[in-house]
Parts: sequence; C-alpha cells; structure tokens
Amino acid sequence: MVLSPVENVIARIREIAGDRVSQGQADREAHSHGESWHAAPLPDAVVYAQNAEEVARIARICHDARVPLIPFGTGTSLEGHVTAVKGGITLDLSRMNKIVEVNSEDLDCTIEPGVTRLQLNDHIRDRGLFFPIDPGADASLGGMASTRASGTNAVRYGTMRENVLALEVVLADGTALRTGTRARKSAAGYDLTKLFVGAEGTLGIITRLSLRLHGIPETIVAAVCSFETLGGAVDTVIQTIQSGIPIARVELLDDVQMDAVNRYSKLSYAATSTLFFEFHGTPRAVEEHVARVREIASENGGGAFSWAENTEQRNALWKARHTAYYAALALRPGSKGWSTDVCVPISRLTQCVLQTKADIEASGLLAPIVGHVGDGNFHLAHVIDPDDRDLLARTYAFNERLADRALAFGGTCTGEHGIGTGKMRFLEIEAGEGAIETMSRIKRTLDPNNIMNPGKILRLPENSDAAKLF
Amino acid sequence: MVLSPVENVIARIREIAGDRVSQGQADREAHSHGESWHAAPLPDAVVYAQNAEEVARIARICHDARVPLIPFGTGTSLEGHVTAVKGGITLDLSRMNKIVEVNSEDLDCTIEPGVTRLQLNDHIRDRGLFFPIDPGADASLGGMASTRASGTNAVRYGTMRENVLALEVVLADGTALRTGTRARKSAAGYDLTKLFVGAEGTLGIITRLSLRLHGIPETIVAAVCSFETLGGAVDTVIQTIQSGIPIARVELLDDVQMDAVNRYSKLSYAATSTLFFEFHGTPRAVEEHVARVREIASENGGGAFSWAENTEQRNALWKARHTAYYAALALRPGSKGWSTDVCVPISRLTQCVLQTKADIEASGLLAPIVGHVGDGNFHLAHVIDPDDRDLLARTYAFNERLADRALAFGGTCTGEHGIGTGKMRFLEIEAGEGAIETMSRIKRTLDPNNIMNPGKILRLPENSDAAKLF
Repeated sequence: MVLSPVENVIARIREIAGDRVSQGQADREAHSHGESWHAAPLPDAVVYAQNAEEVARIARICHDARVPLIPFGTGTSLEGHVTAVKGGITLDLSRMNKIVEVNSEDLDCTIEPGVTRLQLNDHIRDRGLFFPIDPGADASLGGMASTRASGTNAVRYGTMRENVLALEVVLADGTALRTGTRARKSAAGYDLTKLFVGAEGTLGIITRLSLRLHGIPETIVAAVCSFETLGGAVDTVIQTIQSGIPIARVELLDDVQMDAVNRYSKLSYAATSTLFFEFHGTPRAVEEHVARVREIASENGGGAFSWAENTEQRNALWKARHTAYYAALALRPGSKGWSTDVCVPISRLTQCVLQTKADIEASGLLAPIVGHVGDGNFHLAHVIDPDDRDLLARTYAFNERLADRALAFGGTCTGEHGIGTGKMRFLEIEAGEGAIETMSRIKRTLDPNNIMNPGKILRLPENSDAAKLF
Repeated sequence: MVLSPVENVIARIREIAGDRVSQGQADREAHSHGESWHAAPLPDAVVYAQNAEEVARIARICHDARVPLIPFGTGTSLEGHVTAVKGGITLDLSRMNKIVEVNSEDLDCTIEPGVTRLQLNDHIRDRGLFFPIDPGADASLGGMASTRASGTNAVRYGTMRENVLALEVVLADGTALRTGTRARKSAAGYDLTKLFVGAEGTLGIITRLSLRLHGIPETIVAAVCSFETLGGAVDTVIQTIQSGIPIARVELLDDVQMDAVNRYSKLSYAATSTLFFEFHGTPRAVEEHVARVREIASENGGGAFSWAENTEQRNALWKARHTAYYAALALRPGSKGWSTDVCVPISRLTQCVLQTKADIEASGLLAPIVGHVGDGNFHLAHVIDPDDRDLLARTYAFNERLADRALAFGGTCTGEHGIGTGKMRFLEIEAGEGAIETMSRIKRTLDPNNIMNPGKILRLPENSDAAKLF
C-alpha cells in the first residue's frame, strides 16, 4: 500500500507522539474552526503537542513533505485563523500549559503557549499581580500573542504587542529561536518578538512566552453610565482620552447590545447606549479621575453613574460585558455569529460609529455594536444563519463598506480580531502592494514550502484570482 | 575613461540630485561617524535627499550597482551606525524636515525623517502636546526610530517602539511601502512598523513617520536626591517601580558623573550617587506619588529632595543631566568618548551596577555611570584616547565583561544605543544562532545585494572570521 504524503506524515508523527495523534472525526471537527462562522474542510489529523522539541520535529516532517501545520490554542479566534483550508495537521498546544516562572520583583513571567489568561491570573493573584490583556474569551496566551489580542484593558495597558517581552519560536524547518530577553527594553537587532506577535502562526509556532505583568492597583472602581444618544457616549470617551485621564477600561454597548445583555444576563440597565468604565490607581488619583469623567459624561447627556466598588459587583459587571457576544447570538436562538471589528483615529470615532449604525439599519441586519472605544476600536456581532446565502452576501458587502469606511477615516480593517481567512482582501487594500509584497517576502524566506497555517493573512497562490474569500 | 561602479553611481545620482551631491572631503568626513569613537573609512559621496521619490530612485541605482547606501540623520548615534565601512553613498535626510500634519485631537503627528525632537516639540508645545522620547541629543526622529531610541522618559512613556504608529519606507530595490495607519492599534498582518524600528537602516530607509503624541501633564515636578550609597539609590528605583508608581523619569548619576556634571555645568550638588526624578499627572496624583517616593528614598539612605517646580528650574536640572556625556569628556580635555549601555531585569540592577562599578575601579578606567534605571538600563561613558591601543583593548575587554554580565542576569547587551558596528559580537551571543539566522534571512530577502547600511547589526560575509570588530 502506498501512503499519500499526508498519511505518511501522520505515520511519522505517530512515531513521535503516539496516541497523542488523533484522526477521529469529532476531534478533527472540534479543531476545524474558531468561534465564528468561516466554512472550511477538516484537518487530516490533530496532534496534541507536549514540548518544544517535539514541535520542532513535527514541523520538520511537515516542511519536508509540504503538509500544512496549523497551531491551535483554545479555538476562540474570530476570523477563521485555525481553519484547515488545505487540510494537514492541526497542532493542539493546550497541553503545553506550564507556568515556567513568575518573577514578582521584575513584574514578568515565562509560560508555555497553552496557558490561558484566567489560569495565569489565578496563579499570580496572591502575589498582587495581574496580566491585563483581556479579550473576553479565556484564550490561550500563545493564541493571544499570535493574533495580537487586545480587549477591554488595552487603552491603559496596551495590547499583546506591548506586553510580550520575548518568545521562543519554532520555524517551519524546525529551527528554534529565542526572540529576546527579560529586559524591559532592548535595541539589540531586529524586533523578532513583534514580528511573531500577530503573525497568526504563519511564520512559526510559539513554544514559550515571557510576558509583562502589572501590580494589582491599590484602588479599582467600576461604573456604568447610560446616555441619551450614541454620539454623546462616544464623545464622552473622546474627551476623556484627549484630556489625558489614564482610564483603565471604557467600553461602549449600543441600545441593541444592551437589550441583549439585559435579557441574557438578567439585568435591568436602560436599553440605550451605555459606557462601562473602570479606574485604576492610588486612592486620590482615582477619585480625581472619576470626578473629571463624571463631569465630561454629564456634559454629553450621560445619566447617573451606577457603581461597582467591590470585587463581586465588578465581576458581575464585566461578566455582563464579556458575554455580550453570546447575548447577541441568543437574540435569535440557533443562529451563528460573524464578528467583525475596525479601529479608527479617535477623532473620527463618532462619525464612523454613527454611519455604521445607520448602515446596519438600512441593510436590515441584526448586528449589535460593542467597542473598546478608548482605542477607537469597535465591533459588530452579526447574528446570522449560515444557510442563508443572501444574508451572508449582504453581511459581507456590509463588512466591506465598514472596512472601506475605517480606511477612509485613517484607520485599520481590524483593531484586534486579525486577518485569518476573513479579511485578506481588506488587508490588501489597507496595506497596499509594497507592504503586501514585503510581508510575502518575509513569509517565503521563513516558510519556503508554505506549511505554516497556509492561506491566512496572505492568499494562497492558487487563490490569487478569487474575487471573494468568505 | 571608464568609471568605477561607485563613480558611475555618483554620476547617475547627480542627474537626479544635482548640486545636492557632495564629494568634498569635509562633507564626507562630517558624515563618516556618530558621536562616539568607531574607526571607519569615509563614504565616497554625500547626497542631501529631498523627497521619498528621490530616495527610491537613488536606492534603485545603488541596488543595481551594488553600492552601499547609508542613511544619515544628525550623526548623534553611539555605536558606529553611520560609518561607511564599505564606502558608498551616505544619504543625508536632514533636509527632509517637514512637519506634515499634527492631529491634536488624536494625539498624533506625521513628519519627515529629518525633523528633530526639539523641532517637533517646539512646534506642538502651543497645542499642549509633547513627544516624550528624549535620548539627550537633539536627534532626528528618523534616526531615533532606526535605532529604537529611548532615554529619560521611557519608564513612563515607552521607547520609539511604543511611540511610532506607522512608517513610510523605501526598500533597497526602490519599493515604497507604508507600514500602518494612524489607528492606535491594529491586528492587520505582520507588524512591519516594528520591524523597521530598530533596524538601523539595514532593511530600508524611513521617509515618513506617524508618531504618538502626549498631552503636556497638568502638573510636572522634578527633584534631585543624593544618596549615601550607590546601592541605596538603585534600591530606591527598584522599590518605586515595584510599587507601581507611574514615575515619569528617574535617572541615576554615580559619584564620578556627579563630580563631572558639577564641574561642567557649574553646579554644587553633592558628588555622591544621585537620582534625578520627574513626576507627571494631575495635582493630587503627583502629590501622592511624590510622598511615596520620598518615603522609599529616605528608607534607603536618601537625603533631602531638592525641588525644581517651575519650567526654568526643571530645564536647568535636565540640561545638567543631558550634558553628562560632554561633562564626562571634559574630565580629560582632548579625549574621545566610547559610550556603552546594557539593560537588565530590575531585580538584578543593584548587583549588576555594583559589580560593574567594582570592575571599572579594578580596571583603572575612567567611565562615569549614568542610567535610565527605571527600565533597568544604565550607561558608561568611557573617556578614552583613541591612539592608546592598550587602553582601547582594556576598554573593549571591559565592555565584553559588561555585556556578559548583563546577559547572565537575563538582560540585553544594549537597552537603547543599538548594535551598529560596535556590538555585533555581543548580539550574536545574546540572540543565538536561530535568531541571527532569522534576522539574516529577513535581511537577505529585503536587501539581496546588501546595500542598505551594510556591516551593521549583522556581519559582512567577508568578516565572518574576524575575531573582534572594534
């Protein structure tokens, strides 16, 4: 019997990983998608990796045989990042979940890629430390680095871009490298750390991360404030940022989303445009910042602040925010989600959000708006039926207009979800020929056989003529 | 008459740039070095570039003829970044110094690479804005991006890595690209911005930058505090950072450096280890932060705080700090400087500084210590006579021990000065084979003829056996 290249690769990986190789339908199905709807075939096998050395050996086997290798964390990405568009091997890194070391004095830690953000935060809480990047889902930190994740705290603490100190990475041909040290800053050569952060597994597989940690602030205060108008809510955020108040979180939920959250989390906030705030700092500083933001809000049609001062109340508040996506899907039971995000310079945010809201209404779509508006970043959760081809086409056309609008305002087609398979065309428009060619050169030199998560960020050569890729 | 390849290139560039091409000895000499001592031949010609299109045409000419092209800003770098190790064309970008736009509401600006940091700050002061990265010298912002500059404010505001939003770049073959948008964050493809920040002109030439700006804080307070011991000063910094106080600047000057500063700037501070502090924020927050730091300092043998509350006093204080390098050189009139820096995790800073101080004394070197110690970063300004070969050899050996020490403590061989020609061997040790090979692949794919500032960061092929490169 002659084995196909993929079968041959699977047999060779079995020699290394034994029964941690799975070809079961359920396993392959579970690893074929993230949390959003993006159609794709299944991988040929799923391998549960155990250590970096094994990852290097598996990569080398796939490289030699030109079989795709797709890294997988928790499957919570939103743009089809983990789909097996060309089949191949999905490498599940969730069992590589050791917290290698925590250096409290240096406010950093070193972990394996399968560690999730809640696992890390549970581990370091007793030391008075926390890791701020919070995309909502309890994602793996390897996955969060790979998609350059961001979330509610980014306005104060930055994104994964600012909070990854160094990585260990395995390239397609099995070459292992370390991209930096634990030093807070360095001018030593090309910034390879930042090259792999956000590369979506297309340049290499992250096998270890050193992360910045932060001290849990002495004082944390959260509040909710309802607004008469969407514009008033957004203007409040703009003025807060422009006045230099170091707000820790500021989240927008529009009327449709607040209605969904109230139903889903059994809450009774007003179903109007609403901001969720959080303030971090020393007691007097927080007091001063809160007073200024209340003033700004009230000038923009904001109502009374509803406070959450203790940890339990705060957790309830942020849980409501974090379940916004599931709350949106629950508006139409049995539906799927198609989430999209853009990010614009903050001076253009009001205009961009209002035009988008009008477009949703004109298009007859169900798409609540939520946003990390302190960064100029907002999201829509399209509630869809994947079998309704007409709805899909209208949704795609809407997303195209949204991306065009963001670009016209000097922004980006994605603030934090990434490109995956879902936004390759938008990336081409945003980046332009010179940047796409530069990215392609880097991809080709580090992964000449195009085995590393192929067909994400950059098109497959055979799809160069495809008009649309959704 | 047959022209050599370089003469031919110069003739072709003259067709584009006319009398902005200079082959005069004085011009070539002035463009052959930065502010430190690194021996190198002169470039064959200096070209004063006028716009990005011209840069692209010149790059293409050099690429086709395999003639080196060395970007030059203000010549204030410290590791031989602008030396013409293989001759060729030095491209002076100082005349490309237009401030293209300032977006006050978005706290950003777009500028040409020859704009200097003081020029930018003068331009935006009236709008209540400032650009925080301050390496001391009035460097060009293109050069500061290229060396990933940092400086006194980095502990609060980050380095060029965190403050460059997007770049326009010309590659070796003349390809022009834009690496991002004005959005505060983006997950759209590979982070090309961060790849060119710190690449020291070896991957392409920056022709335009979009930068983050910051609001001038409502309250700014600066102070100087003398310590009984060097260890007490460093421990004060460590405890301040660990307690999460968002200090804006904290600079260490050791006894030798304070003596030099007193003489040079005609001041009368105690000639002992000293910290210079600056606090930014709202009035009550600053008050609270100052009180905590005074407490920490006094527990560590710090004396009274000497205050500088108004702008004039503050400027005098920071001028003294910024002239530290020239003050060090003035200790031995006629001497040259050889500056070096390392950066370590902050918990190892005391040990690293004390061991280094002991090594200076044991080696009989004159090398005052200054440092952006809030980041774990410190500098030595070796005061040298370039004709004293024995002293040079001892200095190099000392620097090797310093880099080894920083690496052993989990740090980096340079926190902010960069690699240039001066630290290529240290980079090789720090980064390791996998990372050096990855950097080399990126270099080769973007600059296949190795014309972009060759012999910096990565060795020239012909020097692969050279034992030492100083």
